[in-house]
Amino acid sequence: MPEQIRYVIGIDGGGTKTDALIVGLDGAIVADCHAGPSHLQIAGIQGAADVLFECVRECCEKAGCPPEGLQNIVLGIAGAGRGVDRAELVNAMLATGLKKKFPLKNILVETDARIALEAALAGKPGIVIIAGTGSIALYRTESGNLLRAGGWGRVLGDEGGGFAIARDALNAVMRQHDGRSEKTLLTPKALAHFGVSSSDELISKVILDRIEIASFAPKVFEAVVER
Amino acid sequence: MPEQIRYVIGIDGGGTKTDALIVGLDGAIVADCHAGPSHLQIAGIQGAADVLFECVRECCEKAGCPPEGLQNIVLGIAGAGRGVDRAELVNAMLATGLKKKFPLKNILVETDARIALEAALAGKPGIVIIAGTGSIALYRTESGNLLRAGGWGRVLGDEGGGFAIARDALNAVMRQHDGRSEKTLLTPKALAHFGVSSSDELISKVILDRIEIASFAPKVFEAVVER
Repeated sequence: MPEQIRYVIGIDGGGTKTDALIVGLDGAIVADCHAGPSHLQIAGIQGAADVLFECVRECCEKAGCPPEGLQNIVLGIAGAGRGVDRAELVNAMLATGLKKKFPLKNILVETDARIALEAALAGKPGIVIIAGTGSIALYRTESGNLLRAGGWGRVLGDEGGGFAIARDALNAVMRQHDGRSEKTLLTPKALAHFGVSSSDELISKVILDRIEIASFAPKVFEAVVER
Repeated sequence: MPEQIRYVIGIDGGGTKTDALIVGLDGAIVADCHAGPSHLQIAGIQGAADVLFECVRECCEKAGCPPEGLQNIVLGIAGAGRGVDRAELVNAMLATGLKKKFPLKNILVETDARIALEAALAGKPGIVIIAGTGSIALYRTESGNLLRAGGWGRVLGDEGGGFAIARDALNAVMRQHDGRSEKTLLTPKALAHFGVSSSDELISKVILDRIEIASFAPKVFEAVVER
């Protein structure tokens, strides 16, 4: 029996989308595939497992690789900060694989921050800071220890992330509206961005319709430049 | 036909409970009644209308007052900041009254902040500040105008309210946890309050179980005194 060609799959799963690559052991990319959100807190464990399993199967199909040809599956998943959740995700993917007659093995789940660290520094010591909708910093010391700051979510932390920036900007709009602050460039920008004609309408839209606040962050940077 | 004895009902409706009083035109309290939440954003328009209608009917029963004996019904309802919502609440109460053969009239809806202002100042100029779970300030000027600051909800405002205080305290706990801040008295208090044994468990409880954060505010005051 000839020796099997072997592959590795790497997946980056977040709150908006999931990207997967299958590569040979020489590092050459053989195929990619894309899917919807697999953020653990958004999709749930089983929801994420379903999305991720289908990504793996699709990569294997494109590469002509049977399940036993997979050397490793490495997942960097947003919202996977707790060990217990990571273990449950592995179990759910193993169970799904057995059920769908495409058995998986050697599944390693990390946070999305951890895979960013590895991608940026290739095992060397250093710090990555991710500032998207949320924020987190991850540091590998000279001795290889991993240290973390932030990433505690939009209520208790995520300082400097897009949600926090947009929320603080809209607070400034509220303070102009009720007379506690000077006029701000942010007010016309917020009205235009959220498609309303007055601060009163903005309040209804933001508070009652639970609109996605973080989307306003890029306009805050615009205002800083224009000021 | 003898002249009807006439009554006025006043209701204070919030996110936790609803309190109603029925008084004679001389101001003497005849009866009271109590019900669950009638906060407009929490109970919804029809849900609030049902709670409030039953309060009115119960007051009238206790006072032996038929619906036509009611001179006025004045409602101070949390979450009723928008005129369009107040009008819908009146309409829903009128419709409920007709359906239940207990027709109402002369319904006046105000915010809970406005009735606090009237209760505290009896029509004179002045400021009330409400700092509960949220926060708002309301000011009647010498010329009788009403001005407002704050009350924009837990995401965009409500500075100094119980939710904001507890959230900022838990952010300090997170900063101690990941090494960004000094040790804080708030950490043991938060662990005890939320019934967990470590900051890691606290994070799971607060972020994933969406626990009521504002309940921690009184312990923050304790910590200030003990420091």
